Amino acid sequence: MSNPTAAMLVIGDEILSGRTRDSNMFHLAGVLAGRGIDLREVRVVADDRAAIVAAVRALAAGYDHVFTSGGIGPTHDDITAEAVAAAFDTPIAVREDARAILVAHYDRQGTELNAARLRMARIPDGAVLIENPISAAPGFSLRNVHVMAGVPAIFEAMVASLMPRLTGGRPVLSQSLRIHRGEGEIAGPLTALAAAHGALSFGSYPFVKDGVFGATVVVRGEDGGAVEAAIAELAALFPDDIG
Amino acid sequence: MSNPTAAMLVIGDEILSGRTRDSNMFHLAGVLAGRGIDLREVRVVADDRAAIVAAVRALAAGYDHVFTSGGIGPTHDDITAEAVAAAFDTPIAVREDARAILVAHYDRQGTELNAARLRMARIPDGAVLIENPISAAPGFSLRNVHVMAGVPAIFEAMVASLMPRLTGGRPVLSQSLRIHRGEGEIAGPLTALAAAHGALSFGSYPFVKDGVFGATVVVRGEDGGAVEAAIAELAALFPDDIG
Repeated sequence: MSNPTAAMLVIGDEILSGRTRDSNMFHLAGVLAGRGIDLREVRVVADDRAAIVAAVRALAAGYDHVFTSGGIGPTHDDITAEAVAAAFDTPIAVREDARAILVAHYDRQGTELNAARLRMARIPDGAVLIENPISAAPGFSLRNVHVMAGVPAIFEAMVASLMPRLTGGRPVLSQSLRIHRGEGEIAGPLTALAAAHGALSFGSYPFVKDGVFGATVVVRGEDGGAVEAAIAELAALFPDDIG
Repeated sequence: MSNPTAAMLVIGDEILSGRTRDSNMFHLAGVLAGRGIDLREVRVVADDRAAIVAAVRALAAGYDHVFTSGGIGPTHDDITAEAVAAAFDTPIAVREDARAILVAHYDRQGTELNAARLRMARIPDGAVLIENPISAAPGFSLRNVHVMAGVPAIFEAMVASLMPRLTGGRPVLSQSLRIHRGEGEIAGPLTALAAAHGALSFGSYPFVKDGVFGATVVVRGEDGGAVEAAIAELAALFPDDIG
């Protein structure tokens, strides 16, 4: 059986405007790789309802899971929950279980649960809440779409809350080798190696360091012994250029 | 006249597997913002021909420009040029002007232009080359799709080569204000401010620092004076919480 597939949808003007460098994509990719869930695609769209609705529909239809980050806070530009509900033609309103979580949190803090904050208790019908151990306001899973916050610390905590609910697959194991030769020298032998090990995937990621070209070759597969054997073969081809 | 629109397509298993944290998206977003070209969407797909073809077609049809990064080197997993050509049903083959660039470069280095390296001279019919001042092998623009390397230093150099060819728009100016109050306190006044300044866009980006919640509010627009005035109004609303 092949592994579950996934896509991520980052909702964030701040990424598209160049103000912020994404870190949630990098975090989620690492978590999913360790769980045997294959992240196949990421999209970044603006805080724009039509763009979010279209992306949610396309990704939810194409992959087993969709993970979203961003746009679920209390301000006017937080429109993700509404847009995800709209993508599935699902009603959304303040839900009592979510409201109770916010009431308890703001009571503890001695802070008012005002109208803006109450927006964070709006949850689509039939969604399952995702716990937020940092700032309380929950995320939610609606069908195969998991809606989480954009602040990295909160996103990461929500991912940790959600993961035990998802069925993983066989983690993909990987090993890499840095070869201090131009990719043009590596390409031929690597093609032959890839052809000889059809169950593994071989990626070559060039780098430039101190003006010298090299490439990191990454071998990935479910069979750790096979990955190790392929790396050993590769290393033997470039005995003087490894490290 | 509104600004030109753009999308970016990142081709990279290494991003999706969690091995590498993207930096090209962040770089391009900043460059485009400064040129008045509106980056509206980013997609990240795997080194998979069908996925690249589908994404190129969708994005090229939806935006004025598409910028791709990754997958144009000499190894077997470098399939971007072929896939972009296929997306437009355009023939692709080694082109003499591209070959001449490689011949000159490898001659200078005293390195053999072998079959793998010659793959980097495969250019779709009708494409315009994008200069690569670092490692010579060129990128190209086919219609509205600009194909560049994935190694950050080379990607950035190619972006710099390409930009003078593109017509920009009015750069979007932005100013930001860090407010040390929870977003729930900021939301109400910010909504009113946004309603009063319809020509500007207001984004609120929460942060957690040393256990304290705050938000960076970003005001964006083409009129610098209007942006400044809105920031001043906002600052006056939270006189004790700015910094």
